[in-house]
Amino acid sequence: MAQRLIVIGGDAAGMSAASQARRRRDRNDLEIVVFERGHFTSYSACGIPYWISGLVSGPDELITRDPETFRTKYAMDVRMRHEVTAIDLDRREVVARDLERGGEVRERFDDLVYAAGAVPVKPPWADTDANGVFGMQTLDDGAALRDWLEAEPQPHRAVVVGGGYIGVEIAEALIQRGLSVTLVEAGSQPMATVDGDMAELVADAMRGLGIKIRTDLPVTGLEQRDGRVSAVVTAEGPIPTDVVVLGLGVRPNTALAEAAGFPLGPTGGIRVDRRMRVAELPGVWAAGDCVETLHRVSGMPVHVPLGTHANKQGRAAGINIGGGYATFTGVIGTAVTKVCDLEVGRTGLREREATRAGFDFISVVAESTNRAGYYPGARPMTVKLIAERPSGRLLGAQIVGLSEAAKRIDTLAVALWNGMTVDDMTSLDLGYAPPYAPVWDPVLVAARKAVDALAALDR
Amino acid sequence: MAQRLIVIGGDAAGMSAASQARRRRDRNDLEIVVFERGHFTSYSACGIPYWISGLVSGPDELITRDPETFRTKYAMDVRMRHEVTAIDLDRREVVARDLERGGEVRERFDDLVYAAGAVPVKPPWADTDANGVFGMQTLDDGAALRDWLEAEPQPHRAVVVGGGYIGVEIAEALIQRGLSVTLVEAGSQPMATVDGDMAELVADAMRGLGIKIRTDLPVTGLEQRDGRVSAVVTAEGPIPTDVVVLGLGVRPNTALAEAAGFPLGPTGGIRVDRRMRVAELPGVWAAGDCVETLHRVSGMPVHVPLGTHANKQGRAAGINIGGGYATFTGVIGTAVTKVCDLEVGRTGLREREATRAGFDFISVVAESTNRAGYYPGARPMTVKLIAERPSGRLLGAQIVGLSEAAKRIDTLAVALWNGMTVDDMTSLDLGYAPPYAPVWDPVLVAARKAVDALAALDR
Repeated sequence: MAQRLIVIGGDAAGMSAASQARRRRDRNDLEIVVFERGHFTSYSACGIPYWISGLVSGPDELITRDPETFRTKYAMDVRMRHEVTAIDLDRREVVARDLERGGEVRERFDDLVYAAGAVPVKPPWADTDANGVFGMQTLDDGAALRDWLEAEPQPHRAVVVGGGYIGVEIAEALIQRGLSVTLVEAGSQPMATVDGDMAELVADAMRGLGIKIRTDLPVTGLEQRDGRVSAVVTAEGPIPTDVVVLGLGVRPNTALAEAAGFPLGPTGGIRVDRRMRVAELPGVWAAGDCVETLHRVSGMPVHVPLGTHANKQGRAAGINIGGGYATFTGVIGTAVTKVCDLEVGRTGLREREATRAGFDFISVVAESTNRAGYYPGARPMTVKLIAERPSGRLLGAQIVGLSEAAKRIDTLAVALWNGMTVDDMTSLDLGYAPPYAPVWDPVLVAARKAVDALAALDR
Repeated sequence: MAQRLIVIGGDAAGMSAASQARRRRDRNDLEIVVFERGHFTSYSACGIPYWISGLVSGPDELITRDPETFRTKYAMDVRMRHEVTAIDLDRREVVARDLERGGEVRERFDDLVYAAGAVPVKPPWADTDANGVFGMQTLDDGAALRDWLEAEPQPHRAVVVGGGYIGVEIAEALIQRGLSVTLVEAGSQPMATVDGDMAELVADAMRGLGIKIRTDLPVTGLEQRDGRVSAVVTAEGPIPTDVVVLGLGVRPNTALAEAAGFPLGPTGGIRVDRRMRVAELPGVWAAGDCVETLHRVSGMPVHVPLGTHANKQGRAAGINIGGGYATFTGVIGTAVTKVCDLEVGRTGLREREATRAGFDFISVVAESTNRAGYYPGARPMTVKLIAERPSGRLLGAQIVGLSEAAKRIDTLAVALWNGMTVDDMTSLDLGYAPPYAPVWDPVLVAARKAVDALAALDR
């Protein structure tokens, strides 16, 4: 009799796991059942802001593979709109509710992949019966916001609460749709995923686009009129609005896992080993936005909900379930984003993170250009490096530029992954031609500056 | 009394060395004399094709620093249009001729930097008294070609001999100026700096632009009429033309060094150690296109004339002369170029080079896109990886794509520099966001494919 794999969550991590397991074990060897609460499988949540802005026509374009493809091509039993309500580890069963037709099913498993993703952080004040307040995490969230923006009476003013990646991207999407947009941030600046000096460049670009930014201003409540949201409440008074989008980040979706006795780590994510096995629970795997992982630079557990990690983690779990050997060995915090005209990239630790992790370090900021200065399209680029002292080991890097900037972070990410020192980095053989780089690539200019800064401290 | 540094050659390597030495030792400690044969210092030879095409207005834009800047800001005695004719190592003197005013000078040195660059490969048939035949190595060459293209009678047909980087770039520049262009290549294809399968993509793009490509066709002579070149002669008959540009590569300019007893290596370049000291000659340094260097993957000496290496080598020599410690530890063969609409990048060894160096290897070619498939501006990209068997160590990589492709080679170059295996590489934490990459970056897609290819051989 075939063994049975149950997957909870049909997005990036879950479907990667299921696909890799199927690739190595056919339907006679392994039955695969997937429960997905929503309406979609395997889609790009990162693409939602571009669907809101109209740059992408979506939502179909955002879907990598639909349920029918998994059913027919991968021989999986994909049950949409089914919410798993309990995991019984003793009987090796899950209980799922059919959200459309009602009723419950119990299904046994030999292997279980828990890939329930994340849930948006929702402060108490956001619990409202007023219409016009949206999270921004799933394709269903995106569809709801689009409907609201297009229905009568059309909203003219928007408030985005929270200045992380999603908040900033949604703020830009809304202003591109012609709304008047205010971004409200409880901390000292939006885009705190990079250091203050770099984030200031981003804030400037946002203001240049017409986005109003209010910082150090926690939202404490909502006002409504006729069942529609009409303002967010702050210590500096209400900010009138026709729509509120919450961009306050997400936390691991672990309610079900916790109830079943899965171990959680200090970040609130599920603890897994490098093969994506849930600690102490044989045959139980977890992957994606619900798990915590190792930060390879700080050595500390972190929760980094990002599609690229979810895919790699799911793939590793699936290969292992399929009888192969694969590991996910941690992250170094690489991220890129596009804000207005700016490209922003980061990897490794920010200054604050480096301090918290106990490093002694220097940091340098180097100005350069994406192309040879004389080549058409040459634009400024700022590269910041953080290096351990006195070893010179690269700890982190940030880039803000106007063109061909963000993905240069990958060069720095691979250097950091390999534990290179800034001195080693000055020797790197990087591609040079006038359309692509000055003769000293911005990465090398920054590395040289870091070497000089370390040497100056030695003297 | 101040010591004295003489620099032969006032371009990238020579002026980097001089500048770094000056940075660490002031004029009272070190006198610096630079002899430069030509009219320009520190310019971007790589920019010449874009000056020919008109994309860059040049030549001033191509000059990083002019002689006057070095004289006034760096306190150097820069003697333009002075050709060094002899090096006397016993007396520690050089002899230089003033090409403008005539006459010779003898100058003593304590330290000598030999940075005479490279000379174009010029076959016997190219020795002609006909006008209209141009090398393409110095700014003076570029100026001469531009004058010829603009003078009456205006040339309408051009033949470029040789399909390396310069040949291909000049062919494109000439067709952009409206000439009818034929590229004649003795080998089986142009752009042989990448493997045949990748080079074919480049040849297709060139043909699409209207460039005629003739391969396996050595040029054997030139025809002339009224003192002007009128055709190149080949085994398949003459190819009529109004201008001929030679793009047959360069070789180290070592005549003077050889006469003085400098040791040359198997590539014909000067042998230097990692501090850029000429072997066995105390106080004598060499850097730039005249030296050979170590290929870190093959372990063999290579001659790679490229501004980025010249700058790094010159900088290392100058720091050492200045009393510091700096090394140039070799190259891995990274190069990028823009051909028509295509971006081309390479690093490490091509298949042929890997075979010659004695590696057993596999290679894979993976198709992907620069951005998320649904994001506007997503274009195809081809990544080829060559990996050692059975270790999986990356040996080389090539990229051809339409947008945001070439500089992705840097990510692979840093992986290769650090000796990563393709299996390690599948874990890399690279930047992901829809405007910049699919959720599996093309680099990761290719690494996964290489892992699969290696595994298939194990079975």
